[in-house]
Amino acid sequence: MTQKSLEICFSPAIFGAHADKDAVVVVIDILRATSSICTAFANGVREIIPVATVEEAREMKGKGYLLAAERDGYILDFADFGNSPFNFTREKVGGKVVAYSTTNGTGIMKMASDCSAVVIGSYLNFDALCRWLEEQDRKVIIVCAGWKSRFSLEDAVCAGAIAEKLLESGRFEAACDSVHAATDLWKMAKGDLLGYIEKAAQRSRLRDKGLDDCIGYCHTFNVTDVIPVLRNGKLVAL
Amino acid sequence: MTQKSLEICFSPAIFGAHADKDAVVVVIDILRATSSICTAFANGVREIIPVATVEEAREMKGKGYLLAAERDGYILDFADFGNSPFNFTREKVGGKVVAYSTTNGTGIMKMASDCSAVVIGSYLNFDALCRWLEEQDRKVIIVCAGWKSRFSLEDAVCAGAIAEKLLESGRFEAACDSVHAATDLWKMAKGDLLGYIEKAAQRSRLRDKGLDDCIGYCHTFNVTDVIPVLRNGKLVAL
Repeated sequence: MTQKSLEICFSPAIFGAHADKDAVVVVIDILRATSSICTAFANGVREIIPVATVEEAREMKGKGYLLAAERDGYILDFADFGNSPFNFTREKVGGKVVAYSTTNGTGIMKMASDCSAVVIGSYLNFDALCRWLEEQDRKVIIVCAGWKSRFSLEDAVCAGAIAEKLLESGRFEAACDSVHAATDLWKMAKGDLLGYIEKAAQRSRLRDKGLDDCIGYCHTFNVTDVIPVLRNGKLVAL
Repeated sequence: MTQKSLEICFSPAIFGAHADKDAVVVVIDILRATSSICTAFANGVREIIPVATVEEAREMKGKGYLLAAERDGYILDFADFGNSPFNFTREKVGGKVVAYSTTNGTGIMKMASDCSAVVIGSYLNFDALCRWLEEQDRKVIIVCAGWKSRFSLEDAVCAGAIAEKLLESGRFEAACDSVHAATDLWKMAKGDLLGYIEKAAQRSRLRDKGLDDCIGYCHTFNVTDVIPVLRNGKLVAL
């Protein structure tokens, strides 16, 4: 069996150096966009439409869509709710189409949209995601959304966790230094994941804004088997 | 005493998110550009003129400059020598002005040239560099040259070593996740630095090309006290 190539991209700003149209791209934005998206699909959302700019978000609201939108952790004043996974309840999103715009998570989906597939990763759908990635006959690029192009520790650690699992399957080979670094960071973190994440800048940002009630939840394995996938510019359940 | 901010930038592609004109920028390209530059100054080179493109390199050769130039590890056919630190001997470069172009190392110097200072870092000038950085009343940004915009393990590990030393001085605070990641990678690596670097992609590239005789040397601490600094587009000894 030929091993498939596995890469990790630590920032959307580096994506051009990794981009490969034949690859499956996994988008990771643990605090909080991709954790929230997985939660929304676990709670029966029909579609999520990623929206890159504040202007587009306002337009979508005008068209009557339910709108989840935040910048720097704060809900946009014309949005229905912000970026906490706890907003995406079955009551609010079940059966609905939601437009969704975040500081870092949505832009990379557009950048990667001409790749073979774009799927949403988090701890919440960890095992289901890894199983599916193992079954694809494709190179995998895990893209960390980061923070305004910067490296984010919590995304790198989750990317390392996924990479370790994929490498253990024997179906992948690590083709880039970011994979080695991320798996080593995951090895340091996994004994006390929440303790390790304490030093992450995004951890502090959320604490300062009183938005850190979801940290534990966002680092919980296997809450759902759903794998959100981008199809024609919209996220749907695979 | 106010603590100064310390950041690490893992790729020139991310530099825009870190850039700060008041900061001192440390450029790291361990295999091999910044190790070679430190070696050249230890051996008495008068000036090094960083040259970004192959065309500029050819022009500089035409103007009569001694030219060190490589792409992807290979010496350019019109250059006097390539990128190995062992080329920059006292016999070849002592008292001379050298034009120097490499795949990754020289571009970032131009990008950072309007910052407060741009200095060249490596293991070879480690203690002298750290002492000088501690004395400056400036934010420090360590920029890893990486490989064609990608993250490079050997640069991240050296950046982590410098960061650990600066943080231990008590004069700096870690203001970004890359600092936490790099210092943790350094902690994993330092017990067996060359063994750890074995998995780096650039380690393999150099081995494949028979250019890996310098790996041990490039990971040797404190061969020189010289700190190359960019002044008016040219590198000189501080």
